[in-house]
Amino acid sequence: MLGRLNHVAIAVPDIAVASAMYRETLGATVTTPQMLPEHGVTVVFIELGNTKVELLEPLGEASPIAAFLAKNPAGGLHHVCYEVDDIIAARDRLKTSGARILGDGEPKIGAHGKPVLFLHPKDFQGTLVELEQT
Amino acid sequence: MLGRLNHVAIAVPDIAVASAMYRETLGATVTTPQMLPEHGVTVVFIELGNTKVELLEPLGEASPIAAFLAKNPAGGLHHVCYEVDDIIAARDRLKTSGARILGDGEPKIGAHGKPVLFLHPKDFQGTLVELEQT
Repeated sequence: MLGRLNHVAIAVPDIAVASAMYRETLGATVTTPQMLPEHGVTVVFIELGNTKVELLEPLGEASPIAAFLAKNPAGGLHHVCYEVDDIIAARDRLKTSGARILGDGEPKIGAHGKPVLFLHPKDFQGTLVELEQT
Repeated sequence: MLGRLNHVAIAVPDIAVASAMYRETLGATVTTPQMLPEHGVTVVFIELGNTKVELLEPLGEASPIAAFLAKNPAGGLHHVCYEVDDIIAARDRLKTSGARILGDGEPKIGAHGKPVLFLHPKDFQGTLVELEQT
């Protein structure tokens, strides 16, 4: 069921500082920031050849990463996103095995314009898992 | 300087339970556990096509992931590992720019038999970064 690793997401308090660190100190290719108000984040991508890292900065008052940054003010690894061919089939398999889907259990259109679901970290060893249909 | 994402590492309290979750619930390919007493971990790899996830369980009394699991008993995202062509050149560039290398600053042979360094999470937005020479 699991396909490629689509991305690893890192929540950061200041995306300009973080982008400069990755670009200048680590010599990485970092895209220009995109504001995604409907997702409550500003995002850049670090292009790594085989996959990418997303840096996420909170945007607006109801940002989904605000609570994480309140607990981890310096930032930190936030979630991993795996690709699946069929997100409804994936969801149904997960539900059958007792794994919990966050929210109402219906896929939403994610930051990349594709259907996504998030799985409960308590079911996956403390790791927030996103599934994205590709 | 940064090459591919070599792996994402997740610390887990029970690698058998975690492996079963990834294999059975998420339908992933999971290798059989390897004990690496010299690294203080038992490890399995989740093969994802473009990269891999490492699940790490503490092994022995001086495991480098023991403190992380004491703080995060359910487990959680532990580090990301990026590939570099020349780890000495990478280290020297990082030191020049003020980033801190963990330990004595000399590369060690990592769990994959290749030279690795770990960078201070405080310099990278709360994220523990491993560099591996490939």
